[in-house]
Amino acid sequence: MAQKTVHAKSARSRIHRLRLSFSALNADALLVTHLPNIRYLCGFTGSAAILLVDASRATLFTDSRYTLQARQEVYDAGTVVAPHGLIRAVGEALKARRGTMRLAFAPAQLTVAQKTSLQLAAGARVRWLTAPDLIERLRAVKDSDELTRMRQSARLISDVWTASVRHVQPGISELAVAAEIERSMKLEGASGPSFETIVASGPRSAWPHARPTPKLLRKNELVVLDQGAILRDYCSDMTRTVFLGRPSVRVRSLYNAVLEAQAAAIAAIRPGVSAATVDATARKVFKRVDLERYFTHSTGHGLGLEIHEMPRLGRGEETLLEVGMVVTVEPGVYLERLGGIRIEDEVLVTAQGAEVLTSASREFLDL
Amino acid sequence: MAQKTVHAKSARSRIHRLRLSFSALNADALLVTHLPNIRYLCGFTGSAAILLVDASRATLFTDSRYTLQARQEVYDAGTVVAPHGLIRAVGEALKARRGTMRLAFAPAQLTVAQKTSLQLAAGARVRWLTAPDLIERLRAVKDSDELTRMRQSARLISDVWTASVRHVQPGISELAVAAEIERSMKLEGASGPSFETIVASGPRSAWPHARPTPKLLRKNELVVLDQGAILRDYCSDMTRTVFLGRPSVRVRSLYNAVLEAQAAAIAAIRPGVSAATVDATARKVFKRVDLERYFTHSTGHGLGLEIHEMPRLGRGEETLLEVGMVVTVEPGVYLERLGGIRIEDEVLVTAQGAEVLTSASREFLDL
Repeated sequence: MAQKTVHAKSARSRIHRLRLSFSALNADALLVTHLPNIRYLCGFTGSAAILLVDASRATLFTDSRYTLQARQEVYDAGTVVAPHGLIRAVGEALKARRGTMRLAFAPAQLTVAQKTSLQLAAGARVRWLTAPDLIERLRAVKDSDELTRMRQSARLISDVWTASVRHVQPGISELAVAAEIERSMKLEGASGPSFETIVASGPRSAWPHARPTPKLLRKNELVVLDQGAILRDYCSDMTRTVFLGRPSVRVRSLYNAVLEAQAAAIAAIRPGVSAATVDATARKVFKRVDLERYFTHSTGHGLGLEIHEMPRLGRGEETLLEVGMVVTVEPGVYLERLGGIRIEDEVLVTAQGAEVLTSASREFLDL
Repeated sequence: MAQKTVHAKSARSRIHRLRLSFSALNADALLVTHLPNIRYLCGFTGSAAILLVDASRATLFTDSRYTLQARQEVYDAGTVVAPHGLIRAVGEALKARRGTMRLAFAPAQLTVAQKTSLQLAAGARVRWLTAPDLIERLRAVKDSDELTRMRQSARLISDVWTASVRHVQPGISELAVAAEIERSMKLEGASGPSFETIVASGPRSAWPHARPTPKLLRKNELVVLDQGAILRDYCSDMTRTVFLGRPSVRVRSLYNAVLEAQAAAIAAIRPGVSAATVDATARKVFKRVDLERYFTHSTGHGLGLEIHEMPRLGRGEETLLEVGMVVTVEPGVYLERLGGIRIEDEVLVTAQGAEVLTSASREFLDL
């Protein structure tokens, strides 16, 4: 009944590749505390877990709410149901081992409080070793099971948009539009939105991360709609901007600049190109038409089990694109009072260049 | 247009009380990294921020996506838009101060990586001082503005349940029921669910934290529906369990045990009673009918800006209840194969005892 979140074969291969990466650091084991990483490695989807991976086995620590769920979901890992807190159980397991142990951990995914408690419980024979992004680097390149899911999720959000755009009309509230979009996702089989759906109208559209409010959409307003779904654990993300009425020449030229920046960035995507280069390509288009200062965020981001993953397409990001990475390309301009325009699609890096996964029309709709 | 999330007067009073608490620790300033705490203290709702509060002022650090939003939302704090990351900007601000400084921080809300970077940037004149839960303890007791919002949010979720229960019928999927509930929240003015709505049917209802799936509801199944909304920034949370058909004597007696455990726990709530006592009261009812081992989680939790806040109503929680605290009371039993039953309401602690804020009927519905 429950959909398995990871195939047994994928789980084994992911843990195998992970072992290679932490052995290269001369670590004996890796402590995994970030829940999406745990899901990626062993399939468990609960909200309380720590995974300990060493050279020969993986052990999932969770609490009593998840006994049954862990039994059904977890691949290729033993499960310990901790009676008195995860930290204590992990600490005791570390302490029970013989000899010294070099334990790698991701410092961005462990709080100062957790580290202090774990160190105390595990004792002095554990040597702590910072190892950032080991799993995130694996996750940036999607395997074939993941790509199937990413394509399905991208198709779903494209269909949801096409079906929902009829609701975008003067007189409806931002919240009601968001409600229709999210309902449509679920009816199409998504487990939910991959982030809080953005419906931002009029001057509020100039907030790149506006949350929907009871404000009614009005004639002659820009509306930015940014939506994503989670389907079989994988996120999608797509933005369209529409105008309620006949846009002015100024608004139309802004829209065309964003569209052109997006097309240029997509065209720049291929294996071996740096993330920063893709970002710079979008920025260059805006610079030419003197709009660069209104483009206040980075050009895009990886996505998968989470809505923001590696690589970030932004200034100074030297990561080289690889076949199998999936990123958003979402340039935008935000002008106080007038509003904002953003166009976002998902792109898969292939040997031939970019393949756009989201399929809804990018034509400027005046509704 | 944008709803202010905090009244100016509330913001000033909250920061004032916070200063008293960190001065008592002999700290010169407090670093606030947890976003709901930032929202509580100064009104900012964006997704990237650090707030630095010292004896004379508060400064919000955010990034360029939020320039306009910060200008509209923030009360009683200066704003710094950081061009090269929040950590660097905060570190530079700390370094620029004269003399040594005792800086309090919450170790559960700062990662090892952030602490390392901040320490490096701030230099040796900053003395780091762990101070857990300073703001959480303030937030546990709601002020009158917050109580107005909590009551509205609780009323909304009660109305949503009453309007949505007609969808709970054999043949509809768990996801579709969740979609209807969440759509109804938004149409009633909620900004969204306060957590992923749980619709768990049949054997899946024995997972206390099941996520909805495409599984269809069937005749003669238990269905656990756990839902909450965010209205004007404040969370609600309510669970009802229904049976699709005529429940057996066994199922009916399980339901009555849960109902009795909830009533006993609610009756135990009054100022000065410990959180552990309320939990023990529910547990005692289950013990009497030999069901204690099926009650696998704690009895309840505080809620407010977040869905889980202080105090937790669980074993070993010595916090004494105070007037103005709002907690859930949600005992449940979970039996493999047969399914789960949980009944949850929100309760405000008043001088007279418990006031139940959620108003939907707790009668066992056989639909």
